[in-house]
Amino acid sequence: MKITCHFQPDSSEVDRWIRHFSQLLPDAEVTRWQPGDAPADYAFIWNPSRQFITEQTRLKAMFNAGAGVDAFLKLGLPVSCPLIRLEDAGMGEQMSDYVVQAALHHFRGFDRFQEQQQAALWRQRAPSDKADFPVGVLGFGVLGQRVARDLSAHGFAVHAWARSDRDTIDGIRLFHGEHALGEFLAATRILACLLPLTPETENILNRENLGRLRRGAYVINVARGAHVVDDDLIAAIDEGQIAGATLDVFREEPLPRSHPFWRHPRVRVTPHIAAISLYSDSVRQVVEKIRRIEAGLPVTGVVDTGRGY
Amino acid sequence: MKITCHFQPDSSEVDRWIRHFSQLLPDAEVTRWQPGDAPADYAFIWNPSRQFITEQTRLKAMFNAGAGVDAFLKLGLPVSCPLIRLEDAGMGEQMSDYVVQAALHHFRGFDRFQEQQQAALWRQRAPSDKADFPVGVLGFGVLGQRVARDLSAHGFAVHAWARSDRDTIDGIRLFHGEHALGEFLAATRILACLLPLTPETENILNRENLGRLRRGAYVINVARGAHVVDDDLIAAIDEGQIAGATLDVFREEPLPRSHPFWRHPRVRVTPHIAAISLYSDSVRQVVEKIRRIEAGLPVTGVVDTGRGY
Ligand SMILES: NC(=O)c1ccc[n+]([C@@H]2O[C@H](COP(=O)([O-])OP(=O)(O)OC[C@H]3O[C@@H](n4cnc5c(N)ncnc54)[C@H](OP(=O)(O)O)[C@@H]3O)[C@@H](O)[C@H]2O)c1
Ligand SMILES: NC(=O)c1ccc[n+]([C@@H]2O[C@H](COP(=O)([O-])OP(=O)(O)OC[C@H]3O[C@@H](n4cnc5c(N)ncnc54)[C@H](OP(=O)(O)O)[C@@H]3O)[C@@H](O)[C@H]2O)c1
Repeated sequence: MKITCHFQPDSSEVDRWIRHFSQLLPDAEVTRWQPGDAPADYAFIWNPSRQFITEQTRLKAMFNAGAGVDAFLKLGLPVSCPLIRLEDAGMGEQMSDYVVQAALHHFRGFDRFQEQQQAALWRQRAPSDKADFPVGVLGFGVLGQRVARDLSAHGFAVHAWARSDRDTIDGIRLFHGEHALGEFLAATRILACLLPLTPETENILNRENLGRLRRGAYVINVARGAHVVDDDLIAAIDEGQIAGATLDVFREEPLPRSHPFWRHPRVRVTPHIAAISLYSDSVRQVVEKIRRIEAGLPVTGVVDTGRGY
Repeated sequence: MKITCHFQPDSSEVDRWIRHFSQLLPDAEVTRWQPGDAPADYAFIWNPSRQFITEQTRLKAMFNAGAGVDAFLKLGLPVSCPLIRLEDAGMGEQMSDYVVQAALHHFRGFDRFQEQQQAALWRQRAPSDKADFPVGVLGFGVLGQRVARDLSAHGFAVHAWARSDRDTIDGIRLFHGEHALGEFLAATRILACLLPLTPETENILNRENLGRLRRGAYVINVARGAHVVDDDLIAAIDEGQIAGATLDVFREEPLPRSHPFWRHPRVRVTPHIAAISLYSDSVRQVVEKIRRIEAGLPVTGVVDTGRGY
């Protein structure tokens, strides 16, 4: 069996992935793709080139080295085999830790105490009640569900928004579809975005939708930068509609040095580190799926390219 | 039944406590203590005056309006009836949220990303493994146990230190006694202090003990300010032995404006708000204990004044 690995930009990471694959599949030939290579059976990819796609036409499946396939689909390349994304692969726990930290940061007033500290100001505030800080999770997929459950276990009242119709799951009320977005937002005081980036979800955190949140809401974006209309978010914070934001992802990454997010006192910036797919979890998952495909069994995580995730 | 309430400094809070008691015990006479008052059956107190103690000698029990009795015992007043502290009373969840936030703040690198943000610096770091960040909880009482369990549920490896001999509880390894402190500290990368303040625990976070922690350890103090030797902590941070600290309590409160903690880039200061006893939980607890005492039944939370907690 031949497995080819192809990342753009090319990086030394690829060698590490290759070593991990070779360890788990000692009989497979695992290589870094080069133009002109013979056809492989499976590919492990990140932002493949046009040449890769036009040459490697006999793949049984292409595995995306992450959860989000937006960057790949944006290339507009034809996909002649199943495109399979990573599911959790160590990201669930990281994402949950990140979002729980950010939610508690705001709920417990660490954001305000930090402002007070800068002024050497000692001012106590009565503790808030979690019932007054309902958390809304945009996206209830692999990562959104994990985050929602952990926030709920932490005592937050959690509701979520997805595309398909479901009801309440583990005490988490589900809203679905465009028509329910307004009701979802109106019920939300802490918003965590875990949507995939698709034409439907791009710019979803714009002036109009930010305005539908409960006044003084807090925004956490760990999905994709293009979900947020940057100027609208800054304006909403400056008007007091939004209390502040913790942002891990940006339209342009690295976030340009001149971008106002860096300097805004109510915006916390992290450099797209909320969740990283872990080598061993990811490779184990991909290898298990290869085994299932070889055995003619169905696999989960196949991207619906029309839907965009 | 007569219940007298006496807080120093006297505050409008007392009226709110009195209203809560009157609601739950409509037949009791609940009043704010005045010098010369007739003897009461029970007292609800915070830092009582000498005159109060010398006058109110027929109390069946004195209830402390908090978990820590160090301020009361420091007065050195004779205590002729059981002194009973609040147990949890809404504080457990708050304490847990605070400490989980602070632990994740350091573990997930929010502290370093905040420094990077000040310099508009985009620098990713590989995610850390929780196995490399064992959390040590000093004090395994009502609040320490809650905090330890929640940190453990969050995937941290947790161990704790107490006075009395116990073994492993819910996967939390227990160290006990002075002789085991060194081993406890050497195993700790994130330290959360939840000890009562007693002659044995005062200044426990001094140069020597901070030096026994794993290099680069993070310190969270939510117990009492006098557990920490301020200059030693600052020196340890400046030397790199300690990565930083989140501090809620201080030797002098409010923390004086000139104190270096306010301005230290690796110290987060909050104004003693980690956990506040909630009116309804506290009053319900005290009333339940009064009923038990009236029925001749034993109650929990009685302070051992010799031991100091
Ligand atoms: N910051 C980071 O480090 C990082 C790391 C990993 C992933 N991410 C981001 O996290 C995203 C989520 O990952 P995941 O694995 O949880 O994705 P997923 O399993 O594909 O889940 C996507 C969720 O979004 C919902 N959704 C999609 N389009 C929608 C629409 N138009 N309206 C309403 N709901 C919609 C889906 O609804 P249905 O359930 O009804 O299909 C599903 O619940 C990724 O796409 C990626 O952008 C970021
Ligand atoms: N920052 C805030 O807002 C806030 C709010 C509430 C409380 N607090 C602080 O939190 C503290 C803890 O409260 P709690 O209700 O959990 O107290 P607790 O139930 O009395 O527990 C005290 C724990 O410390 C241990 N301990 C005491 N002396 C020790 C010694 N010399 N060596 C080793 N272990 C020792 C005890 O060991 P044993 O189990 O063996 O007895 C026990 O596990 C309070 O005293 C107060 O100072 C702060």
